[in-house]
Amino acid sequence: MNALPNMTPAPGKRPSQRVEHGGDLSAIRARFPDAPEPWIDLSTGINPVPYPMPMLSAEAWTRLPTPAQEEALIAAAARRYGVPDPATIVAAPGTQALIQTLPRLLPPSRVAILGPTYEEHEVCWRRQGHEVSTVTDPDQAANAEVAVVVNPDNPRGRLLAPDELPSPSKLLVVDEAFIDLLAPACSLAGALPPRTVVLRSFGKTYGLAGLRLGFAIAGHELAEKLRGEFGPWAVSGPALEIGRAALDDDAWLSATAERLTVDRQRLDEILIEAGFVILGGTPLFCLARHPEAPAMVERLGRRGIHVRSFRQQPTWLRFGLPGSGDAFERLGACFND
Amino acid sequence: MNALPNMTPAPGKRPSQRVEHGGDLSAIRARFPDAPEPWIDLSTGINPVPYPMPMLSAEAWTRLPTPAQEEALIAAAARRYGVPDPATIVAAPGTQALIQTLPRLLPPSRVAILGPTYEEHEVCWRRQGHEVSTVTDPDQAANAEVAVVVNPDNPRGRLLAPDELPSPSKLLVVDEAFIDLLAPACSLAGALPPRTVVLRSFGKTYGLAGLRLGFAIAGHELAEKLRGEFGPWAVSGPALEIGRAALDDDAWLSATAERLTVDRQRLDEILIEAGFVILGGTPLFCLARHPEAPAMVERLGRRGIHVRSFRQQPTWLRFGLPGSGDAFERLGACFND
Repeated sequence: MNALPNMTPAPGKRPSQRVEHGGDLSAIRARFPDAPEPWIDLSTGINPVPYPMPMLSAEAWTRLPTPAQEEALIAAAARRYGVPDPATIVAAPGTQALIQTLPRLLPPSRVAILGPTYEEHEVCWRRQGHEVSTVTDPDQAANAEVAVVVNPDNPRGRLLAPDELPSPSKLLVVDEAFIDLLAPACSLAGALPPRTVVLRSFGKTYGLAGLRLGFAIAGHELAEKLRGEFGPWAVSGPALEIGRAALDDDAWLSATAERLTVDRQRLDEILIEAGFVILGGTPLFCLARHPEAPAMVERLGRRGIHVRSFRQQPTWLRFGLPGSGDAFERLGACFND
Repeated sequence: MNALPNMTPAPGKRPSQRVEHGGDLSAIRARFPDAPEPWIDLSTGINPVPYPMPMLSAEAWTRLPTPAQEEALIAAAARRYGVPDPATIVAAPGTQALIQTLPRLLPPSRVAILGPTYEEHEVCWRRQGHEVSTVTDPDQAANAEVAVVVNPDNPRGRLLAPDELPSPSKLLVVDEAFIDLLAPACSLAGALPPRTVVLRSFGKTYGLAGLRLGFAIAGHELAEKLRGEFGPWAVSGPALEIGRAALDDDAWLSATAERLTVDRQRLDEILIEAGFVILGGTPLFCLARHPEAPAMVERLGRRGIHVRSFRQQPTWLRFGLPGSGDAFERLGACFND
């Protein structure tokens, strides 16, 4: 049942060190020490044009976050995500912290993960003693007690309609990390089915991954359990203030959606021109195939551009969006000589 | 065995809502709507003169924190706390997050908490199904499998020498939240006994409680387990950069220790003059007794000063340190009419 055998951490090893993630330039910098600086990091699906930093109060840093501040953040998240009942929303220091926590709340269960996808789901369910399998089709999750779906999927961007999602007997986890810029009806947040938890990331769309902020939307009982697991002051003062301001800002979000649509198209054109086949993606990244993908990684690395490759799929590369005209030109130039 | 019966959360209630904490002005503001602004919050043991904010890189906000940044923070913590092996240090988004996590790592056990003390320890061990009792003397913890000691104690400031600490069969938890400004030999961090975990808070001494940063120092096996529970990117980018700069700054810490010594003495003099008996404290707070403590809370509240009272000990008040000459004068004036 172990569909991704070399992902399982060896006993005594730190599991998170075994999972490949984008967003760390140190290894690629060491591999291409002569590459021009600054590096362009296209290895994540994080918006390269962040939400402009609001003025923070001194108290955001100095005082313990208050329940009133957390309620204000939750109210902003409820409006943004279309959640009718704010009591069903739990704020956490990053979606990863929620992914770590959910598997602790259920007795050992049969867990089906629609994948391959973001690897931390598998690592975290296994760590808590669950029996985990990776399935490639939602129908194969029919007998699972817990199902995990990243929707839209990462890295392929495959989007399942609400009625295509599996209905496991205990819990459906829908990780909507990359759904923000799609049509609101694509999300389950507005009309949560029973036995379902939806995860929403803040840092990707708003380009503030260092802030650590994410949300779960769950039934009252599970939401209470999650809050109990995190305890008081789980989210930092800066995250409470910045998150609230950003989630309330309709104008920034719609301008961002427009810019990313144009930029995604420009990215696709550059890749197609360079001989890639576009396999999918979201407004924040493009998954593309090239028969010589490893050589492409070399070519990009020598020019200071980092993209995401995949052990399991050596012909795939995932490209995040370049954040400026210059970055687009540096990317295009890689393929023009 | 339940020495603090009304601390146990009712079933279905959010436990953390039942615990009284300092640091939230909303209730006291509502109770004294005519009090002068700004309020002076003496209800916590947080340094009122925070570490001056260093320049943050844009990447602290926008990028996922990197392993290299976390290693740099851990190295600074190892120097500051005198820990010989950085691999025994785990960084977390606040000590509270560690207090929430430790009880998950042991099978149901007999837990003795030296108390009454910071109430979240009891709440968190109970939530994970352990059998918890509060003991008033370290000797009473002799038969426990897990013992929890806040050292120095909060609110009384009682400090146990390393050889006075209990030696439970499974794990000794020593919460050193208020030890930073005492002699280094008071801490277990430099020579960790077996089956022991030490918790160190960042936000109190450095006056940055909103940042959410704390550390556990534990044997390799427990440290690895804790890291696995938190997963990647547990600490925010701003906390990594600010924490590293602050923990490396010897000059600021020694100037702060000197200032707090003088200020603590001035606080004690004001309270003694006002008829309080000093029961104890640390460099960051003073615990004092007054036969009419509730009337004193009224008197202070009408003048916009918030202090910490205790349901279980109605004659006790805990005073944090005023952060300026003005704040000292406003406090003194409360008792002079």
